[in-house]
Amino acid sequence: MSERFFTPVPPAAGSATLEGDEARHLTRVLRAKVGDPVVLFDGTGREWPARVASIGRDRVALDTAEPTIDPQPGGIPLTLAVALPKGERQKWMVEKLTELGTARLVPLETTRGVAEATASAQARLERGVIEACKQCGRNTLMEIAAGRPLDRLLDEVPADVCVVIAHPGGRPLTADTVPASAREVIALVGPEGGFTDQELAAAEHAGVIRISLGPHILRVETAAIALAARLAR
Amino acid sequence: MSERFFTPVPPAAGSATLEGDEARHLTRVLRAKVGDPVVLFDGTGREWPARVASIGRDRVALDTAEPTIDPQPGGIPLTLAVALPKGERQKWMVEKLTELGTARLVPLETTRGVAEATASAQARLERGVIEACKQCGRNTLMEIAAGRPLDRLLDEVPADVCVVIAHPGGRPLTADTVPASAREVIALVGPEGGFTDQELAAAEHAGVIRISLGPHILRVETAAIALAARLAR
Repeated sequence: MSERFFTPVPPAAGSATLEGDEARHLTRVLRAKVGDPVVLFDGTGREWPARVASIGRDRVALDTAEPTIDPQPGGIPLTLAVALPKGERQKWMVEKLTELGTARLVPLETTRGVAEATASAQARLERGVIEACKQCGRNTLMEIAAGRPLDRLLDEVPADVCVVIAHPGGRPLTADTVPASAREVIALVGPEGGFTDQELAAAEHAGVIRISLGPHILRVETAAIALAARLAR
Repeated sequence: MSERFFTPVPPAAGSATLEGDEARHLTRVLRAKVGDPVVLFDGTGREWPARVASIGRDRVALDTAEPTIDPQPGGIPLTLAVALPKGERQKWMVEKLTELGTARLVPLETTRGVAEATASAQARLERGVIEACKQCGRNTLMEIAAGRPLDRLLDEVPADVCVVIAHPGGRPLTADTVPASAREVIALVGPEGGFTDQELAAAEHAGVIRISLGPHILRVETAAIALAARLAR
């Protein structure tokens, strides 16, 4: 596989430009030369075979061929709404969720949560998604939604979306937990200290299905990744 | 949940002793006092409620009550045979595989592997298993087997064990990939550069089922964790 580069502006008329970090990575780390092949993707499911046309300071021009468009994936898109863990665990989680095909990550604000869903956190998560997409060959970015409290998320759920909440004592997650008619699955993962009784009651009141992921107490990122492995497409 | 401590020597006659790191963790990090409650587990599925009886230098005596014995888990035990990633990724993988209920990890020696399965690596992995068991409430250690080359592993597989190999182009992993009659599932995960054609041919010759984990190129630890999330019990 050729090295992959992300361009938020799709190529036009057979050419594209990389700037900033992406350009520096190509020229300084990979020491690319004019004529070298690379692959560009724009995060919406398209990729372009390309060749380096010229190299400037912090700027690389590329000649691009016709794009290939990823087939529409089967199955139901998965949104994970997670009380973000901190530091390295957060970074790992985003990498793994991206690799496993999660459609969207919503930072979930909960009573016992430890990491705030600030704008700078969101930008950092988005950078992690791009890095993982470059590495794993995914051409559609995992969306990082704005953080929101659990009650607001529950209020906003449309009728044809299936919501599950991972918490000890729930029913085992099986192939028929999610109805085939669901337009989207939203899986809720609480913080290290768990959801509060009040949060669980609010989820139950909203018709959310409580599921268990086995007999052990999973870390936040483990629960999120296990849900992605089992539900993402 | 009380703090959990591992003791390779099970309590006898209502008492137990913690030494070394476990004793130091209890006295210096947690600053335990005589009478404080803890939980001991011996790694074979049993746990004991206990109380600190006396604190010495690098040595803690505990009074223990009757053990509880974990119920025999349902389902088929999962062995993951993995070309180990390096450093943090290896450590992280062991934590997640333990949390998710993997029965056994076999370091797999492959042509393109990057991390050697030395005795010191094995000891490090075992320490990681204990730490994860303490944290996630698992009372049976995940076994760390001695490293072995793929061809030797394939030679040793008994007839009633189902072996799958994760590699692009395989069939999707579904509920009926593993026959219900299998005594054990062994899932093979190759190194970052993938299995060689020769290794794939050897696996196919041995009747191993080639499976795919979706459209993206998963990192070693992501593939292993996804298999654990889907196959471990």
